[in-house]
Amino acid sequence: MSGSEADLIARYFAVDEVSRDDVILGIGDDGAVLRVPSGKELVVSIDTLLAGVHFPHDTDPASIGYKAMAVNLSDMAAMGAVPAWATLSLVLPEKNHDWLKAFSRGFFELAHQFNVQLVGGDTCRGELAITVQLHGFVNTGEFLRRDTARPGDLVYVTGVLGDAGLAMLIKKYKHKLRQKDYQYLSGRLDRPFPRVEAGQSLRGIAHAVIDISDGLASDLGHILASSRVGATLFIDKIPISPVFASCKDWLDDGMTWVDLAISYGDDYELCFTIDPRNQNMLEQQLLNTPYTCIGEITTSPGLHCILENGEAFIPRSAGYDHFSGM
Amino acid sequence: MSGSEADLIARYFAVDEVSRDDVILGIGDDGAVLRVPSGKELVVSIDTLLAGVHFPHDTDPASIGYKAMAVNLSDMAAMGAVPAWATLSLVLPEKNHDWLKAFSRGFFELAHQFNVQLVGGDTCRGELAITVQLHGFVNTGEFLRRDTARPGDLVYVTGVLGDAGLAMLIKKYKHKLRQKDYQYLSGRLDRPFPRVEAGQSLRGIAHAVIDISDGLASDLGHILASSRVGATLFIDKIPISPVFASCKDWLDDGMTWVDLAISYGDDYELCFTIDPRNQNMLEQQLLNTPYTCIGEITTSPGLHCILENGEAFIPRSAGYDHFSGM
Repeated sequence: MSGSEADLIARYFAVDEVSRDDVILGIGDDGAVLRVPSGKELVVSIDTLLAGVHFPHDTDPASIGYKAMAVNLSDMAAMGAVPAWATLSLVLPEKNHDWLKAFSRGFFELAHQFNVQLVGGDTCRGELAITVQLHGFVNTGEFLRRDTARPGDLVYVTGVLGDAGLAMLIKKYKHKLRQKDYQYLSGRLDRPFPRVEAGQSLRGIAHAVIDISDGLASDLGHILASSRVGATLFIDKIPISPVFASCKDWLDDGMTWVDLAISYGDDYELCFTIDPRNQNMLEQQLLNTPYTCIGEITTSPGLHCILENGEAFIPRSAGYDHFSGM
Repeated sequence: MSGSEADLIARYFAVDEVSRDDVILGIGDDGAVLRVPSGKELVVSIDTLLAGVHFPHDTDPASIGYKAMAVNLSDMAAMGAVPAWATLSLVLPEKNHDWLKAFSRGFFELAHQFNVQLVGGDTCRGELAITVQLHGFVNTGEFLRRDTARPGDLVYVTGVLGDAGLAMLIKKYKHKLRQKDYQYLSGRLDRPFPRVEAGQSLRGIAHAVIDISDGLASDLGHILASSRVGATLFIDKIPISPVFASCKDWLDDGMTWVDLAISYGDDYELCFTIDPRNQNMLEQQLLNTPYTCIGEITTSPGLHCILENGEAFIPRSAGYDHFSGM
């Protein structure tokens, strides 16, 4: 770190919003020194966010900071991990004090809520790119994974799907909406709430877990491919919000609402599979998180979407692909 | 990770160049699951590399991959840590197979040498940016730090300084050089060798350690500021290579060779301080690494550079600053 770089980190990010006992040496040296509790395994995830890809160009910096933390917390959730430490690499076009102040406020809002300490950082000048790595703990052998779904499992999602995609479309086409509804959808796009608590509750219950970042069809597809199974998805069971439901007619003008709900992504809900015999246990464990059964795992490979009338539905796209058409 | 993104990671980076027993779950899920050996503390460092900032735009991709790993290994060295795991975030303007193949070859060349396993990755499309995070181990309480230099300590550097800066200048001004000398300097800029072994040998001997990424004046300055001490630096003791020495006359045309050697950076050598009574121990420990005593720690603050004739030397710049003039 050079002089002004160190100043920048010190000024905006070394503010000790969270101070954990397991951080032996935090920001300010060549590396952080950290202590993993005995009996725990370390879980790490890394995600980069770019303007125009992971958030609209006009997103306020506080929401960018919030989302950079949220998408990584969502990975921790999908692993059943308790988040602990973060590192941040910030590529910035300029040193804009207001931007940095707002960004760090959003970043630390979630960090504080989940007791995550920022232990390292790097900044340099270039096209805006935000990379966060999170570190968390699970009891030895208790982490959740995506490659362990079994035929006969029920498929669930937390929360509702499609709001983030709808928010993007509404911004893009400048669709008129009641102020309250617009705010709800923007919040779902800009400030997804990571299902960290739900992820931890799923340990010992769920067979396979993934977070929905690229769309249900794509992410459930990862569970299926890595578990070497298939699934039947009941389209009429897909949970959507009242605001989303109120926009269905507008949506079906250009693209079907189903495609938006299952193929758009950015929802950061969890998708998981459980043995049907564990339904009661699920009810007892997942007290604070809404969830819905949307399908079942099959032996025949692939994702088969079924409409209420029994007809097959073919999703238009298989989720967000950063290198599609390249 | 979306479909083609996952393919990209799988194709170029999930090649198991290194397979460690302490990696419970590697690339391919929402997070990696890792086991820190008991009695060890975890050291993490993160660095982002941008074209035109951390390497010239015309750098070959294998060298970019090598350097991305090298600069983080250098941080591990400065902490006295044994490197273990890496994560990689790659922002790419396009999915260029030749580029990716060469980049991963350079990246894994060093990873293999230091037994580092790549355990997680993220790729997306944008202006080239490479972020690597490394994880390593130190015995509990044995890590090296920069804020513990003491008055009376001797100041050392490993290797020689200034070659990387000279390589940049020679590229910039298209200075003619013998092919062999040009290759030597380019190698020093593109493929710095991280002093990992030396860093580990300095545990229990060195008081303060830092790696030289932004230039000796700047990085030693960090030791001084955080340790609340000063230093006298003997300019005639600064170690330089024969090729660098042969260019001194050309250099003094535009800038002094001293400025280049102590203010340019990118050398990735270690700068450290020891108690003079530990000189013998240093000799016994640092067998495979060249090192030079260049100064001493003083109680009066600031960095005082002394020429051979006893006159003071004022460095022109205080090292690379990513946000200078902003």
